Amino acid sequence: MRKVAVIGIGLTKVAERWDKSLRELCGDAILMALQDAQQTTADAFFIGNMMSSSANNQQNIGAYITDWVGSRGAESIRVESACSSGSASFRAAVLAVASGEVNVAVAAAVEKMTDSPGPETTAYLATAADADWEVDQGVSFVALNALLMQRYLAEYSWKHESFANFSINAHQNAIHNPNAMFHMQITQEKFNRAPVICDPLKLLDASPIGDGAAAAVIVPFESEKISTDHKTVIIAGSAAASDTIAVHSRKDALWLSAAEKSAKSAYSQAGISAADIDLFEYHDAFTIMASLSLEACGFAERGHAPKLAVDNKISINGEIPVATMGGLKARGHPVGATGLFQLVEIVQQLRHEAGKNQVPGAKYGMAQNIGGSGSNIITHILTNSG
Amino acid sequence: MRKVAVIGIGLTKVAERWDKSLRELCGDAILMALQDAQQTTADAFFIGNMMSSSANNQQNIGAYITDWVGSRGAESIRVESACSSGSASFRAAVLAVASGEVNVAVAAAVEKMTDSPGPETTAYLATAADADWEVDQGVSFVALNALLMQRYLAEYSWKHESFANFSINAHQNAIHNPNAMFHMQITQEKFNRAPVICDPLKLLDASPIGDGAAAAVIVPFESEKISTDHKTVIIAGSAAASDTIAVHSRKDALWLSAAEKSAKSAYSQAGISAADIDLFEYHDAFTIMASLSLEACGFAERGHAPKLAVDNKISINGEIPVATMGGLKARGHPVGATGLFQLVEIVQQLRHEAGKNQVPGAKYGMAQNIGGSGSNIITHILTNSG
Repeated sequence: MRKVAVIGIGLTKVAERWDKSLRELCGDAILMALQDAQQTTADAFFIGNMMSSSANNQQNIGAYITDWVGSRGAESIRVESACSSGSASFRAAVLAVASGEVNVAVAAAVEKMTDSPGPETTAYLATAADADWEVDQGVSFVALNALLMQRYLAEYSWKHESFANFSINAHQNAIHNPNAMFHMQITQEKFNRAPVICDPLKLLDASPIGDGAAAAVIVPFESEKISTDHKTVIIAGSAAASDTIAVHSRKDALWLSAAEKSAKSAYSQAGISAADIDLFEYHDAFTIMASLSLEACGFAERGHAPKLAVDNKISINGEIPVATMGGLKARGHPVGATGLFQLVEIVQQLRHEAGKNQVPGAKYGMAQNIGGSGSNIITHILTNSG
Repeated sequence: MRKVAVIGIGLTKVAERWDKSLRELCGDAILMALQDAQQTTADAFFIGNMMSSSANNQQNIGAYITDWVGSRGAESIRVESACSSGSASFRAAVLAVASGEVNVAVAAAVEKMTDSPGPETTAYLATAADADWEVDQGVSFVALNALLMQRYLAEYSWKHESFANFSINAHQNAIHNPNAMFHMQITQEKFNRAPVICDPLKLLDASPIGDGAAAAVIVPFESEKISTDHKTVIIAGSAAASDTIAVHSRKDALWLSAAEKSAKSAYSQAGISAADIDLFEYHDAFTIMASLSLEACGFAERGHAPKLAVDNKISINGEIPVATMGGLKARGHPVGATGLFQLVEIVQQLRHEAGKNQVPGAKYGMAQNIGGSGSNIITHILTNSG
């Protein structure tokens, strides 16, 4: 496998984007990334998206978007693995370039969720769970996460309020990110007093849905496409793993085995361990997912992740900075695009372009994108150290 | 790029499959392919599917199916490019194995369309066209093909009845294919007298939708996984190209530029030309698509494809055998799975396992899978001659 690098990135603001259509939104991110990479087109486009077939009545968005950005003729497909579709598109682009078949690839991801009313969106999100064995019983995605948190609190004797700093930290980091959905601080008191959305989950445990798109240009590390002023970031590890789609079928509901498997594989490819990671863009769709991800990836012992939050070891200058640009919680969670936002934000950090949110001396950044309730997890490690 | 081969295939009967769920249907094809390849699992699963999110309320079918076939933990994603999703999953598997990152890949594709009522299915199919610029104006997929045929008849002075043999030949070939949807012969008279579905298209120009799944196991050509009794088929060419999603935006509506581009690229990779192809599994969703595909790939001059049908050069023993196991027209068209059926049928031919439909001495088989009305086209050339 030849070594592969990111030479351009683009992303839009996450919000209710009534001002842009699906193709405009994704096109904006792609054109920004191509310009950043000093390219006008690419050989192949890999588009991550979860719900355009339902929310926008549009499939085949590979061709749909490739034409829109002026690259008619190029190869173009959509990849989907529910909430991890964004990083699935990145991995598809990495493999295509690594194979030698594709020389310039664009990985892009888009989600435009707010065109549909809330109850419909809840139903579309539920298609990431098991239609026969979970959704038909009436369970939603929020409910699945609530059940996991319920069990976690009982098993490890944590109180709900101990999870507050996962959300407080994310909101703090989002303040200086112009592309983030929220720019307001929250406090422990606000977290505690937030309305219950599904016991024990409260509103401020949950990330907000939103519209947005992100993109990256991927080339071989030894490419003549890389000009001297490119700030190149290398893909040091890329791995994907799966688990049962229905949570009740897992041997251990509180252990994300696909997170552990893909993280271990990415560490091994990069030749490093969890201790070497300078920042971790984790999948904080809910505070409970943030905790389970930290534990499965080796940043905390089993049942101990909330201690990282309580001790505030997760801030920009902490032991393991997370959600450095706001995370899913405060940058916003345009579901099928989230994974590519995480990766683009890591590139910003590794290029030292993260402004007031810069993690000092960042060398290795890890992104972990979780599809379903842990059924499809993709982990990447990027580095600026060739 | 390392050389890649198919060492196992599986497929289900195409029909209204009320007896099987989505996962059972796809699982059956995968388990058959793994058994054929003498494997129990794979490192990665690439699942092609167009409409499970709408027709089956299920996304994330990578993880959903990977667990079902007993391969929990393996990498698994879905790839989608509308009606060419089946061969997109095959190409994704080929690139993953070629990259060196994946050693045993399963490409599978499934569509279960008949769970939904007809009008809903028509709407789901229309998501392959441009939602803003085509579908919102009321045009359906059948209508787009009717417009193309109308134009073709006017431009090249053919009569509708000259297209009959595309359908007659497909039905003839399906008779000896136990997995085909239809097993009845049709005649020129039946073709002429079929009801008009959208002028000038008649019922027997159109392929039927159906439920079905197909799968293939892909490994490096130099793999220790290949035992001596494996009948190995090599991927000699694999290419994908796109065009505008809206037909009216094309410079030339009657020329499938993405078919030409991907076919030329596949010929060049294989080091052969159209004249060397022993059989062609084309995308005969409608007789007009069959014609446009034959012309764009170099089997007929522009405007002359119906002559191949009229002169019956397309039969098993003809100059260029097409739809050798019944094609979309008579084997059936489970939309997102069709491309993988084409590829599996070519492997059957190249392994000389096509029974009464065997193309004598077949050495090179080509499959072309068309997404949308030509917006996303994927072409593969397979060979038994290493």
